[in-house]
This record gives sequence, structure tokens and C-alpha cells, in this order.
Amino acid sequence: MAVNLSPPNNILNVSGIRLASAYAGVRSTQKNDVVLIEIPAESSITATFTKNAFCAAPVVVAKSHLNEAFTGSKAPTPSYLLINAGNANAGTGDKGLQAAKHLCARTAEQAKVEPSAVLPFSTGVIGEYLPVEKIEAVLPSLFNQLDEHNWVQSAEAITTTDTVAKTYSERIELPCGTPITVTGMSKGAGMIQPDMATMLAYIATDANIDTPLLERLIQDCVSQSFNAITVDSDTSTNDACVLMASCRAEHECLSLSSVHKNDAQHPAYLMVRDALLKIFKKLAQAIVRDAEGATKFVSVRVEQGVDIQECKDVAYTIAHSPLVKTALFASDPNWGRILACVGRAGLKDLNVNDVTILLDDITIVSAGQRAESYTEELGAKVIAQDEITITVRLKRGEVSHTVWTCDFSYDYVRINAEYRT
Amino acid sequence: MAVNLSPPNNILNVSGIRLASAYAGVRSTQKNDVVLIEIPAESSITATFTKNAFCAAPVVVAKSHLNEAFTGSKAPTPSYLLINAGNANAGTGDKGLQAAKHLCARTAEQAKVEPSAVLPFSTGVIGEYLPVEKIEAVLPSLFNQLDEHNWVQSAEAITTTDTVAKTYSERIELPCGTPITVTGMSKGAGMIQPDMATMLAYIATDANIDTPLLERLIQDCVSQSFNAITVDSDTSTNDACVLMASCRAEHECLSLSSVHKNDAQHPAYLMVRDALLKIFKKLAQAIVRDAEGATKFVSVRVEQGVDIQECKDVAYTIAHSPLVKTALFASDPNWGRILACVGRAGLKDLNVNDVTILLDDITIVSAGQRAESYTEELGAKVIAQDEITITVRLKRGEVSHTVWTCDFSYDYVRINAEYRT
Repeated sequence: MAVNLSPPNNILNVSGIRLASAYAGVRSTQKNDVVLIEIPAESSITATFTKNAFCAAPVVVAKSHLNEAFTGSKAPTPSYLLINAGNANAGTGDKGLQAAKHLCARTAEQAKVEPSAVLPFSTGVIGEYLPVEKIEAVLPSLFNQLDEHNWVQSAEAITTTDTVAKTYSERIELPCGTPITVTGMSKGAGMIQPDMATMLAYIATDANIDTPLLERLIQDCVSQSFNAITVDSDTSTNDACVLMASCRAEHECLSLSSVHKNDAQHPAYLMVRDALLKIFKKLAQAIVRDAEGATKFVSVRVEQGVDIQECKDVAYTIAHSPLVKTALFASDPNWGRILACVGRAGLKDLNVNDVTILLDDITIVSAGQRAESYTEELGAKVIAQDEITITVRLKRGEVSHTVWTCDFSYDYVRINAEYRT
Repeated sequence: MAVNLSPPNNILNVSGIRLASAYAGVRSTQKNDVVLIEIPAESSITATFTKNAFCAAPVVVAKSHLNEAFTGSKAPTPSYLLINAGNANAGTGDKGLQAAKHLCARTAEQAKVEPSAVLPFSTGVIGEYLPVEKIEAVLPSLFNQLDEHNWVQSAEAITTTDTVAKTYSERIELPCGTPITVTGMSKGAGMIQPDMATMLAYIATDANIDTPLLERLIQDCVSQSFNAITVDSDTSTNDACVLMASCRAEHECLSLSSVHKNDAQHPAYLMVRDALLKIFKKLAQAIVRDAEGATKFVSVRVEQGVDIQECKDVAYTIAHSPLVKTALFASDPNWGRILACVGRAGLKDLNVNDVTILLDDITIVSAGQRAESYTEELGAKVIAQDEITITVRLKRGEVSHTVWTCDFSYDYVRINAEYRT
């Protein structure tokens, strides 16, 4: 049961970005499992990938193609993203690499582009060989169906254990009067951790943005969205996030050089950045809301840290703690477990008597111990909610950081125990 | 259900070490919850404590008393350990400190020793005030019952969610013909992590060992036992391990200065060390075997690392992974999850093509990918066992390290969700 997550609604086309999905039989359930995305010539594109040393074959190939064909300049040809769910093509060695390259080559053949104009993506079970022929067989049907309207069906096709397809849109109007659209889709749902996860995300806009600026935007947005969520501390072999700009909207090109001079006085840039960040955050939070077995959506906010790293250390120690997560599942305001996490997060010279902890706006720990005003009833009322914010104030500095996570339930165990059976 | 864990059997007295337990009503269940241990004058004693910055009041007091009265020399008086289960006296601020000190003072009064000759220990729920009067009320009864035979009932009294009391003995004969006894007890069972846990352990021997050597022995033994186990990566506020030597056995005193010159040629020292390590390991492994909800006992061994730290990084990344642990629970040889852990353990310049992974003696990953000889049937057979060894070979150096952990089951969630209800 996803936490306060609605099915897709009011999804807007992004001019020039066409999508298609098909059932190739990569997975056994009768649900589309392959998606093709076409990005028109003269678009900008950038991506971030998993930091896992065992990155999957498609990650290796996508990175190499991105370097070869796309870096620093607009994509010279129409380009394509080929995505499959149900099989991660990871831990498959040279044979896996050949499979990913072969699919790029066959896609490129049909599109009459160079193989490096195709980026492959896979998600699913690790260590099984990709059924290349099955995917190859549906390529013609995918090309036939390419359409700007296919965001929702594509978002459904890339899901694995997700219970809800994740796709959101945002429309803004630039100061020059031009409307800009941002639409994105993502999939979770387990193995979610900072520095990417078994997570695929594709965000497109029709705004006119050059690639260097797009690269900066993806870093900014990912650090505040996909790299700020955790379900179970596992980073997958296949994570990827792609940001595309079709540049079809008629406005002065937003370039790194034009924006670099003075961010604050570039209202069009700031508006586009905010619209992108809004979609990145919605997609990232949707992954947590739909995490395997989640019954609560939990924001962990650490304030008054010396630097971002110590805020993250405390936030993730709490967000990863199985004891905190099972207490959240049980709606038990067992704040001692939160306090123990702050204490073991490894902060140098932490003065525990300076620490304050809140559940929403209820102070539970003050000056390092149970707050005078705190009662179990107050805590129990907050923790019974399905959306909770845990705030830790360190009284050491002025930096804050927020991460989003969920609880650990019986269903988490069931889903992950039965994943392959 | 504990994994292959038997009730106490053949527990031997340690000459001079007397114990008693009583029901004070610190916890609601009708089970003894306070233990007193008497250590005779002229004993040696040493201890290690949690590294959590939020260490509990009894830890603060015990450390201070240990510094004051015991360090570097034999304990000058009979000394006492006062242990309660059911309430951790943590997150209780100054009031908690006063409670711990008060109980030491009252114990000292009855024993006619200095308060600093009493070390307090607590385990249980965090953040509730210790019912001092209830514990005080049973002190006379505890003193009356002190007896060398009370290891088993004391081991039972210090348990919280443990399903089996943990106490083991070992007897050896020194080359000079003198028999030496080692007996220890410990309690778990959740919140177990490297660098101590919600874990209390008391190990006693009648061997004649000076305190400096005892301090070295506890470090050696703890690093290979209590600091090599993990259930759920949480380090508690209250962990403590105490090593006592009553020095009643008649043999030449084992001192740091006598042993320091040449370990390998001091057979009596080596025999005592091995006997201690055997008990430390049994007690530590018993905590994992009896971990909350555990159905499997898992050894994670990392070989061919450059240094101990990278072996630990890989071992704990695997041992903490909820995805690995749920797959173990399901007896699913989902080795992709193990491989993903090796990849995200943060090893610098890891060549994934050098990595080998085994389940017991079955090679599942070779040269960074699924081994040619591996079949699901072979993996399924190993993983169905209740004792499993996961071995990772890094091919980077010559260092090895082993940690012990368990799986994550429905019962883990249930026990930790319902702990306080």
C-alpha cells in the first residue's frame, strides 16, 4: 500500500519527446516491459548513474555512448533510450555487455542513427542473461507506436515491484510569455539509497537549455531529490536518471555561460530550475511512498549542523535504523531509538546535552534528555499519522539537510523474501 | 526461535566469584531482573563500554568508578557489579546519573566498601526513570544469596528479549598442572552492532592475571567476538563487557611484563587466552543465534583484502543489508544482492573482475560474474541450511576478517514493533 500516492493525473506531453512501450516477455507477468523514448535532434541530454562498482552492463554502455556522442554539445541526431524491466543485465559479464551493445545496434539500425545515439537501461533481477531476441522482436512495434502521449503507459511499463506508476507534470510560463512543460517518470521501489538506487528516472522538458547548464541542473536537482531518499540502504547496480531538454520552446537559450554570471538575476533560469526540482522531488518522494511494504512516509530533517556531511550522517543513521523503522511501523514513539542513532552517527565532539529531537512539532528530547513537556500521549498522536517529520537540532552550526524514508513492515520482509519466487 | 542454541549445560563455578539474582519489579514480567556479582579482594578486573555518544547513566558511572578504584592495580576490596534488566536508565539526564550513583552507594553501604567499588549496569527500555526504590529493596536479599553456583539463574535474570540464557564454561589445565576455569554470561538480543551493542557480558576466570594483561586480553577477545557480530547495525547506549580474574588458581601470576617479551613462548598465557577467546566467541555468537527473529546463523568472511578495514567494510555492508537478510530468510540464493553489496562498500579502485563469492563451498561469482559451474540448485541447497558461510575473495591482499549475523524475518519486525507494548 503506497502512502498517499495517487495514480497519474494531468500528464502533459513534452514537445518533441515521443515514447512507446511493448510486452516482450522479459518478465513473466503479462505487463509491458520494454520502453523506447525518442529525443529529437538538437535536444540537450545528460544523465547520472549508480556509483556501485558492480554497475550493470547497460550502465557501462550508456555511459560510454553518452561520452561518445552527447557530451558538451547538443545531440546530433534523434537519439533513443531503450529501457527494459524484469531483468537488470547485471553480474552478467562480457555476455551482458554484448547483449546491451547488440540491442543498441539493432535499435540504431531501425532508426538509421549511429549505435552510440542509443542509451540502454535495465532494471530487475540481477545475474540472469537478458533475453535479447525477445526485446529485439518488439523493436518494430515500438518504433511504430512512438507518440508524445505515451508517458503514462511508459511509466507503467518500467515499474517492477511498484504498486503505482510514477509520472508528474508541471507547466510554468517564463517572463517572456513562453509556456514551459516538465514531465518525468520514475520507478522504485526497493534497494533505494543515496547515490542512486534501483531507480530509473526520466525527466523531459521542452525548455531551451544547453547541455552544460543541463548538467548543472541535474546535479542540483538529484542531490535534493533522488540522492536524499533511502528505503533500505542498498544501492543498486542499475540506477540511472536522465534529464532531457527538447529545446522546442521559443525563448532565449538558457546556457551555462549566460546563467553563470548571476543566478539570482536570471528569473527564467530560476523558474525552470524550480519547476524541474519540483518534479524531481515528487518523483523521488513517490519512490519512498511506494517503497516495498511502506505504511508511513517519513522526513528526517537535521538542523544546526556544522556541515552537510554531519547532517547527512545523522539523518541516514536514523533513516537506515531497522529499530527506528520497525517502531515507526508499530506507531510506537520509541524516541530512545532515535536518540541512540544520533549518538552513534560518529559526530566528533558531539555534546549530547545540546541535542533536541522533535516529532513534527512535539519536542521529545531537549538538552539531551526526555523533554519535561513530553508525554507518551503527545508522541503517540504524531506517530500514528502516515506522514511524520523527525527533526534533530544539533546546536553546532547553521547547515540543514532532509532525507526521506519509510518504515519497515511485515510486507517489506515478505516482498523481499519472495521477490524471485 | 534461536538457531542451534542449547540451554545452559555444565556451567562451572569460578572460585571466588559469587552471584545472586532477585525480582525487583523493574520489568512487569515475573522474572528476576536484578543481579549482584561479588568479586573478591585481590582480583583483577577490566571492562569495555559502548561508543555511543549517548551512553547511559550506568555506563558513565561504571567508567568513572573503574578509573577511580580499579585501574592499573588489583581491586583493593571486594567489589560488586549491580545489574538490572528492563530499564536502560538512558536518556534520563542528571536524574538518571543520581539514580545510578545512589544504587552504588546503597550497595556499598551494605557491603562496607567504598561506593567506587560498585559498578552499575542497566539494559532495557531507553528514556524511562529507573525505579530506584524497587532495586534498593532487594539488595539485602541479593547479599544473602551470593553464591558461586548462581551463574545460570543470573544469566537468566539479565536477559530481555533473549529466548535462551547464555552462559558457557571452559576448563583447561596449565602446563604446571593447575586447572583453570573460565565461565561467562551474556545477553542480547536486538540492537547488536560492532563496537558493542545492547549487550551485557560478564566473563570470569580464577586464573592469576594482572590487570594490565587483562586489559590486553579483553581487547584481543572483544575484537574477535562481540565486536564482530551484527544483527541490525544499531549500537546501544548501554553495552558493556566485563572481564574478571579472581586470581585464586595457584600458578605464577600472568603479568603483562612477563608475557610481553615473547607471547609465543609463554604456553600458559596462550592457553588462558585461547580459553577466554573460546568463551567470548561462544557468548557473542549465542547473541546472534538468539537475535530477534533469527532463523539462520550466517558467517560473512572476507578474504584477500588489503587491510582489516576494507574487509570489515565489505563484511558489514553484506551483514547489514536488509535485502541480503530477507533473501537469507527466504532461503533464496539471490547472490546479485551480495554482489551489489560488494560493489557499494566503498572500496577504492575495486576491480570487480577479481571478485569471487562463495556460499559455503559453492562458487557463485567468479571473475566478477556468475560462475560457469553455478546452478540455482547448488545455491538453493546451501542457503536452505540454518548455518551458512558467505565468503568474498577480493584478490587485493592477504588480510581476512569474519563477522557473524543472522537473517531478517517477519518475527524481527514483530518483536521490534511490539517491544514496548
